[in-house]
Amino acid sequence: MNAKIEFKQIGVIRTPYKNSAPYQPVDKDSGDFRIVLEDAYVDGLADLNLFKYIYIIFFIDRISDTVSMEVTPSWAPGTKVGLFASRSPNRPNPIGISIVKIKKIVNNEIFTSGLDVFDKTPLLDLKPYIKDLDSKEDANYGWLDNIDSNKEHLSLHIKGIPHDY
Amino acid sequence: MNAKIEFKQIGVIRTPYKNSAPYQPVDKDSGDFRIVLEDAYVDGLADLNLFKYIYIIFFIDRISDTVSMEVTPSWAPGTKVGLFASRSPNRPNPIGISIVKIKKIVNNEIFTSGLDVFDKTPLLDLKPYIKDLDSKEDANYGWLDNIDSNKEHLSLHIKGIPHDY
Repeated sequence: MNAKIEFKQIGVIRTPYKNSAPYQPVDKDSGDFRIVLEDAYVDGLADLNLFKYIYIIFFIDRISDTVSMEVTPSWAPGTKVGLFASRSPNRPNPIGISIVKIKKIVNNEIFTSGLDVFDKTPLLDLKPYIKDLDSKEDANYGWLDNIDSNKEHLSLHIKGIPHDY
Repeated sequence: MNAKIEFKQIGVIRTPYKNSAPYQPVDKDSGDFRIVLEDAYVDGLADLNLFKYIYIIFFIDRISDTVSMEVTPSWAPGTKVGLFASRSPNRPNPIGISIVKIKKIVNNEIFTSGLDVFDKTPLLDLKPYIKDLDSKEDANYGWLDNIDSNKEHLSLHIKGIPHDY
């Protein structure tokens, strides 16, 4: 069962985060967030602009820690949860998924809302976010509901909105 | 930019689909849909059961067609759209993403709602689906809105619900 699976970089993600990044997409539309697709794939972008949201699938390439099956979110020091119950970037297969809004597409570049990755992160795939398929209005918060914290403050962490308190 | 990126199989997805699969998760809770995680990762499942929905990330390993930047959905013969505006499995990097409900977790096995993949599909990652982060209530349908078809019928295709009319 240990067969290697090989993928290839199809583009690069440009963000303002040279050395630190929030853990999830920021809500703000400010800042230069861009997907730069390799020229060979540009025809595959046709009609993508009709969608409001898209999935960005990327290779989390700047991971150096060893992978642990138990993780503690940096913003919830007393909490330990299973790795797969977390969105920690430090996983057996460091595949990242973020949902962003499309602002505009110009040639091979997609300008998006805030995206929680380091500048020059390798792009693996793009998929349309389709309302009926992907928006689960009855979804929940799992163990996040049990965190003894100000819910408004916690929400900033869940959404990855930068804040300094 | 053509560096190879290597991932590894961390488990296997068991479904009733030996030779054909719907394109997206079926809504029905019937049938045996199971994620079988390799033993080395079982501690990473802690607390995952607290979530209602999870993302299953998998390697679409039974693809034989060449990748084309323009695709025609089998259920919409007159329509041509860009590959990245589609959920076609036939992509430069065949990474699949499905959202399923957790029914129960027993040891290294996660029993789920319907999942649109072939039996024995290699598992790459599991992530919790977190309401605030992943459920976009203002998402749209993109080019699917322009399909000249009965909307109820189209909805079956979008959701991948098997039907024979």
